[in-house]
Amino acid sequence: MTASRERGVESTETAPSAFERWLLQRLCGVLGHPQIAFVLWNGEQVSAAPGAPRGRIHLRDRGILRAVLANPERAFGEGYMDGRIGLDGDLMDLLVLVFRASDRAPRWASWIKRLGSLVPAFNTLPRARRNVHHHYDLGNEFYALWLDEQLVYTCAYFARPEAGLEEAQRAKLDLVCRKLRLRAGESVLETGCGWGALALHMAEHCGVTVRAFNVSTEQIRYARDAARRRGLADRVEFVEDDYRNATGRYDAFVSVGMLEHVGRAHYPALGRVIDRALERHGRGLLHFIGHAQPIPMNPWLSRYIFPGAYIPALSEVLPLFEARKLEVMDVENLRRHYARTLEHWLERFEKANDRVAALYDERFVRMWRLYLASSIAAFRTGSTQLYQILFARAGHEALPWTRHDLYAGG
Amino acid sequence: MTASRERGVESTETAPSAFERWLLQRLCGVLGHPQIAFVLWNGEQVSAAPGAPRGRIHLRDRGILRAVLANPERAFGEGYMDGRIGLDGDLMDLLVLVFRASDRAPRWASWIKRLGSLVPAFNTLPRARRNVHHHYDLGNEFYALWLDEQLVYTCAYFARPEAGLEEAQRAKLDLVCRKLRLRAGESVLETGCGWGALALHMAEHCGVTVRAFNVSTEQIRYARDAARRRGLADRVEFVEDDYRNATGRYDAFVSVGMLEHVGRAHYPALGRVIDRALERHGRGLLHFIGHAQPIPMNPWLSRYIFPGAYIPALSEVLPLFEARKLEVMDVENLRRHYARTLEHWLERFEKANDRVAALYDERFVRMWRLYLASSIAAFRTGSTQLYQILFARAGHEALPWTRHDLYAGG
Repeated sequence: MTASRERGVESTETAPSAFERWLLQRLCGVLGHPQIAFVLWNGEQVSAAPGAPRGRIHLRDRGILRAVLANPERAFGEGYMDGRIGLDGDLMDLLVLVFRASDRAPRWASWIKRLGSLVPAFNTLPRARRNVHHHYDLGNEFYALWLDEQLVYTCAYFARPEAGLEEAQRAKLDLVCRKLRLRAGESVLETGCGWGALALHMAEHCGVTVRAFNVSTEQIRYARDAARRRGLADRVEFVEDDYRNATGRYDAFVSVGMLEHVGRAHYPALGRVIDRALERHGRGLLHFIGHAQPIPMNPWLSRYIFPGAYIPALSEVLPLFEARKLEVMDVENLRRHYARTLEHWLERFEKANDRVAALYDERFVRMWRLYLASSIAAFRTGSTQLYQILFARAGHEALPWTRHDLYAGG
Repeated sequence: MTASRERGVESTETAPSAFERWLLQRLCGVLGHPQIAFVLWNGEQVSAAPGAPRGRIHLRDRGILRAVLANPERAFGEGYMDGRIGLDGDLMDLLVLVFRASDRAPRWASWIKRLGSLVPAFNTLPRARRNVHHHYDLGNEFYALWLDEQLVYTCAYFARPEAGLEEAQRAKLDLVCRKLRLRAGESVLETGCGWGALALHMAEHCGVTVRAFNVSTEQIRYARDAARRRGLADRVEFVEDDYRNATGRYDAFVSVGMLEHVGRAHYPALGRVIDRALERHGRGLLHFIGHAQPIPMNPWLSRYIFPGAYIPALSEVLPLFEARKLEVMDVENLRRHYARTLEHWLERFEKANDRVAALYDERFVRMWRLYLASSIAAFRTGSTQLYQILFARAGHEALPWTRHDLYAGG
């Protein structure tokens, strides 16, 4: 670590104290010495690693330095949103540097971080509804600015890495149907159906009937309209209700991108829902974002983007199946596909900046950019993962012997 | 449950007491009322479920009834070996009935069973060696009587369910190589290499060099001979040593059928071995028998077949990877393939009965038959699973975007 003074920078605040400098250098160590530098309000530069920094983070006043020292993840996000933190270099590249360095961070740093994951969030039915409303009821108009034409707000599947977003989202819907081996006339329970793209796709392309649950009012309204427009309203029922209230028996269960909002404390409840919903020959698919190891949510993300959410490690999810004698048949990790999906979203988002700012404000634009860019960095560096778990009842013969059929068409 | 008296059966022992009958009926409940009946030494029949029994278990003296009541799993196995328990109907079909019924067993029965799994076995280096010697040093001549031509003593892969055993074992070796995406010139660490079939296959068909560990003296001797015969001795090194003593860095790690013998207490040690062995771009595959949920080993199997072994649930294995920032990329469950593999083994074993009895004795024949038949029943009913976990370092780009290439050739 080196400290130097940039020329020609003026500030009315006093220089940082020796203690503040010392704490900042400790922070660089906890971060694993990424190849970046901090530039303070008085022009002073603190490099986190030897050699020329590949990106610079400007801390524009003493208050934001102190906030970063006290709670780095949350304060970085807030400072970036508020313009009290500036950057030299690309936001996402800088985040990748920081995420990669965490492999070199001292082990105690990750252990301290893990302690925070011992406290689960409790998402009662009303709270679950509020949390979902916070994110998904921002307005369909907003999401239409940067999602694909069907508003699929989950990881796409790039059978060809150079595929476009629309193609890759259709490929994901297809992949889910193929994994579930849906047959015409079967019934499917979907929990957390977003704007309904998967439910409608299954009904249209596999000839199944679908009951799809979601607590987001705006999404359900959109999905019902889409079902009517596409002539599928008699085969897809969109229910504005919590997944825990699902009743009936089905040939298949599917949930794409909901587990993140369920909260660890409620995994057994989700297991009960699946168990009572699935026929003897039933099979199911759970698609969710995971962490490479059990760690708590990033506090900034929890506060501003996904209140009540929890991103589990795979080992935290499996007891949900094991407790109900459900067999895990196939787990696929699509981490790189989510990084690519998010790159498409961020590119579209940046093109729609002005319209987003008109809908909300500049601070919102910066907040959402940070969310998308940091998610790309997290998936690229493997701190987050995307898992698809295909399961069936223990001892079933519902699925073929091999996965060959999944790829036979390609 | 009904009790009736068979005609024409004589016994010098007194009839079972009311208390013994009551306990036997409780046992039927704990078993989930399988469609079987117990026939006691005095001809009395106790049906475990209403309706005609689909198989009968003869308990030929009071001592074996009491032993079964006290410790059903172990005593059944011992009684069968010793001829104190006889069967009407096929052994495997009867075991399938019992295994399937366990789904209907009271929850407390499975919870009591699970308590036993809280105590891990400690396999020190000398004990690990003794445990392996117990099973794998029975003599290559014995295994050659009922395994395939290459002595592959792990789950085969039936790309076509009607494939023969030799073809399916070669297909398994191929599948492992394809999953690992081995390239010519790369180096591989294999731990627990059996008679060396996989190591030799990788060297011969993928052009890699292999260092393969095993503590079984007989197997290592056989593997070294095979390497010389096949002209691969310069590319495959068979090391008679514990996996924990493996050194060096490799492009790939593979272990097929060893985890079962590692013991839960030593999973972190295996994680350390993998972590220090793998290059930055390295990837690995762990192939092992799992349970659908965490339960202790069957006590008969632990005593007579696999001392020191533990069959983990998937959730118990994953922390091994999560603690070392290794990403799980792909999990495939090949349960039905292991049932089919075992059917081939049992068929060959039954044909070689006389030669096995000449090598050992009739009791050994019955012991081994029970082991193979109960394993078939366990895999068919889903109480045991076969998992292949493909993994890599978090954030790697070592594996392709999709699994399409695994199936492109078929």
